[in-house]
Amino acid sequence: MSAPPYKQLEQEFKRLHAFRGALALLRWDAAVMMPRGSADVRGEQVAALETEHHALLTAPRITRLLDRAQANTQGLADWQIANLREMRRQRDHAIATPATLVSRLAKATSRAESKWLEARAQGKFELFAPHLEEVVHLVRDKAALLGQARNLAPYDALVDEYSPGLTTVDIDAIFRPLSKRLPSLIRETIALQETRPLMPLTGKFPAGKQRALVTEVMKAVGFPFDRGRLDESEHPFTEGVPGDIRVTTRFDADDVFPGLLGALHETGHAMYDLGLPQEWRDQPVGRDRGMALEESQSLLIEMMVCRSRPFVRYVRPLIAKHFGAGGPEWEVENVYGHLTRVQRGLIRVDADELTYPLHIMLRYELERQLLSGELAVRNLAEGWNAGMEQRLGIRPTNDVDGCLQDIHWAVGSFGYFPSYALGTAIAAQLYESLREGLEGLDEQLARGEFGGLFEWLRTNVHGLGAKVPVQELLKAATGKPLSAASFVRYVEAKYLESAASSVAA
Amino acid sequence: MSAPPYKQLEQEFKRLHAFRGALALLRWDAAVMMPRGSADVRGEQVAALETEHHALLTAPRITRLLDRAQANTQGLADWQIANLREMRRQRDHAIATPATLVSRLAKATSRAESKWLEARAQGKFELFAPHLEEVVHLVRDKAALLGQARNLAPYDALVDEYSPGLTTVDIDAIFRPLSKRLPSLIRETIALQETRPLMPLTGKFPAGKQRALVTEVMKAVGFPFDRGRLDESEHPFTEGVPGDIRVTTRFDADDVFPGLLGALHETGHAMYDLGLPQEWRDQPVGRDRGMALEESQSLLIEMMVCRSRPFVRYVRPLIAKHFGAGGPEWEVENVYGHLTRVQRGLIRVDADELTYPLHIMLRYELERQLLSGELAVRNLAEGWNAGMEQRLGIRPTNDVDGCLQDIHWAVGSFGYFPSYALGTAIAAQLYESLREGLEGLDEQLARGEFGGLFEWLRTNVHGLGAKVPVQELLKAATGKPLSAASFVRYVEAKYLESAASSVAA
Repeated sequence: MSAPPYKQLEQEFKRLHAFRGALALLRWDAAVMMPRGSADVRGEQVAALETEHHALLTAPRITRLLDRAQANTQGLADWQIANLREMRRQRDHAIATPATLVSRLAKATSRAESKWLEARAQGKFELFAPHLEEVVHLVRDKAALLGQARNLAPYDALVDEYSPGLTTVDIDAIFRPLSKRLPSLIRETIALQETRPLMPLTGKFPAGKQRALVTEVMKAVGFPFDRGRLDESEHPFTEGVPGDIRVTTRFDADDVFPGLLGALHETGHAMYDLGLPQEWRDQPVGRDRGMALEESQSLLIEMMVCRSRPFVRYVRPLIAKHFGAGGPEWEVENVYGHLTRVQRGLIRVDADELTYPLHIMLRYELERQLLSGELAVRNLAEGWNAGMEQRLGIRPTNDVDGCLQDIHWAVGSFGYFPSYALGTAIAAQLYESLREGLEGLDEQLARGEFGGLFEWLRTNVHGLGAKVPVQELLKAATGKPLSAASFVRYVEAKYLESAASSVAA
Repeated sequence: MSAPPYKQLEQEFKRLHAFRGALALLRWDAAVMMPRGSADVRGEQVAALETEHHALLTAPRITRLLDRAQANTQGLADWQIANLREMRRQRDHAIATPATLVSRLAKATSRAESKWLEARAQGKFELFAPHLEEVVHLVRDKAALLGQARNLAPYDALVDEYSPGLTTVDIDAIFRPLSKRLPSLIRETIALQETRPLMPLTGKFPAGKQRALVTEVMKAVGFPFDRGRLDESEHPFTEGVPGDIRVTTRFDADDVFPGLLGALHETGHAMYDLGLPQEWRDQPVGRDRGMALEESQSLLIEMMVCRSRPFVRYVRPLIAKHFGAGGPEWEVENVYGHLTRVQRGLIRVDADELTYPLHIMLRYELERQLLSGELAVRNLAEGWNAGMEQRLGIRPTNDVDGCLQDIHWAVGSFGYFPSYALGTAIAAQLYESLREGLEGLDEQLARGEFGGLFEWLRTNVHGLGAKVPVQELLKAATGKPLSAASFVRYVEAKYLESAASSVAA
């Protein structure tokens, strides 16, 4: 007698999980260790494993087992029923994107990515445009197919792939109040900050010593170096599976904070992954609940926990220890001023937390117009520049600082950008409740104690894996549905505080 | 109309090649980069990929295509016909070892390996014995199945897996003259070397500077750092595929040579892999011709090319540059004396080229007795110690220096050891012909020029891939079938040279 359908499915998905882990390592290595000339060889390996993963997931046997298991869920626990739902979701997504489309997209995005690099090097959007057009066409096909399969509007189907259960309704509900409040708040903040000049944080920060500092802080945060690594790469990222999580950052010899905060942002992702339910670690229900929640965890750590006075109090002596940095410019208020400086800039990845959502709104608007055909790809650069001027009051003078700055569209990631802004709103809402529930948090953080913080996050977020939808998780954790209200309260309090209160704090 | 069977097979094996490349990276990472605590996660990933590789290779479709392609080879070139033969060989090996046996062996060797580590830590063979016994039973089953499938005696079938086309007949033809000549040659050499005392090569050799030296030498040898890496690991090894070849070594702070020669040994492997026919790189016929030939290439570089006076002349100024090492102890004769010192020792991996074959003969004898049942696993330690005493005149006083020193049997590698000794004989035979054909080689080596050397090896060895059997390759390259004669001539000339000639040379 063979095992019950549900048990057989667990075995199948355990194998798929191992494939995903192997793919994660191939990608990590490509970004951190691989010799430059080996990209073609690696490309073949990734394609072979992805093709096989797709074939295993869409095999008729999986569909049959899912039908049988879902027809009779008697005797299954709620985690198992949720696991079946997530298995079905993964299978539906894979079935909806046939192997031929996946392969055409892989080739088109591979070409587009290399043309994007070339266009950036030469500062010419027109080199990239025809290749982006091809990608847009294929993503449009994919969105239509996914939408049919998931019973969603095409763009919502793309969002659903990254942030399951969230749609343009949720995104618009966040963006509407933000696009009203942020422009004036940015003006007020900049005006206020101009009245509080900062002393520059000068110094030399050799990479080896930065590494030692970052390692010390990550250990305090709880990152397990016996089951994870810290490395350097061109852009910080987190890759791997719980049990082998790898974080990267990039060190700037003239400024200690980009490397430290980049690593802590990624550590936020890693701690989420590490807090996922251990007993479900190789099953779909044991995975993270999508990119919006992922981003909420990295932003909560970087923006709310680390760009704060308590964290500055904790980290100042460590910076002094590792670099001998002292003097008045290293006083708490001056350092905190640097970590919370607001300015209108052209580059998303360099943006502060007030201007960042405006960068996202622009991309959200443009990518929907590209997919609907309302905006022709050839007019993207102009649309971008006009949008930047309208939203942030500054206009790029070249495409590298404009519509060529992000890799996302080149690699076919449409519907991904909103997860950054959704993540910001989720982070603020969670952090508000967390602070209400955790007495003495600031004192703990100032002592470098992160245990209480992560206990709350594990109970209310990490430990739930993919068991419940984001909205339900948020309702249970904060008592409220997702909205921008907490974020607005948070940034108003943080950026409009009077000089007096800031000195007293 | 679908592609002809042969073309379809090429596609299938291209995919299998990509799987092998991914597996190679998972293993490299496990030894070089992986956090200690992630071994269980990695084990699952490797098992999933190996299982899938086995399933793809043994699919009925492959057999059908092979039958059809081999039934009508008209219009196929000789490389394609050889490729079909190698495809069939791989498939036969995989079919002969059913998934259940592969999985039982994987579990048994995983347990045995951890018990082997424990037994080494405690110095107690009896902790390891029952687990080795389990492995021996399973390997015996495997040897029987492989033997039936390949029409070979069981032990020959195991040898054939590592060194295709070579059998105990070839091994015995090498070992018989060596077991006659080596004991007296070792005695004579040691007596002669005692009359030529050496000055110690003292100094401090920081890892970072050793890395710079090794990198410089590897570049001169021709290792392509844009498609390969050098790293450190507990034991030196080479892993990867042409296009992404990774070499490791281990640095000893008190001695510059183990790290340098370890890396050069591995570079010998890497240069073989890099010289394989590029147009067949993702096909079975484009692979190396087995472990005996692999070892011949690493030994030829390390032992014959690098443990030589010309190489010492080349590398001395580099050592002086990187470490400031000078003084009379760094004169050519003294350094060369150290690189060719012979002594009877208990440990295989530390052995010189004269005593090394005796270590292999002992293992060859013992592993055949274990598999035939002539020697019970519980009596292995005693058999080992007696054999060492008989062959090398020294007796281990503990099992860590005795039968617990190698990992091979714990992980199920029976039939592998002979490839080291076969490699030595092949290397000497190739090097003899190579020197006859290459005028001015010593002068080139003394200038750090390795181009002529590798051109000869590419033409006669590397570029042939797996197209012809080892014996045929050797006949074509040297005009003679494999024998120990060249090796005996080589070691007699090298170790019995008169003091006068050594000074004159």
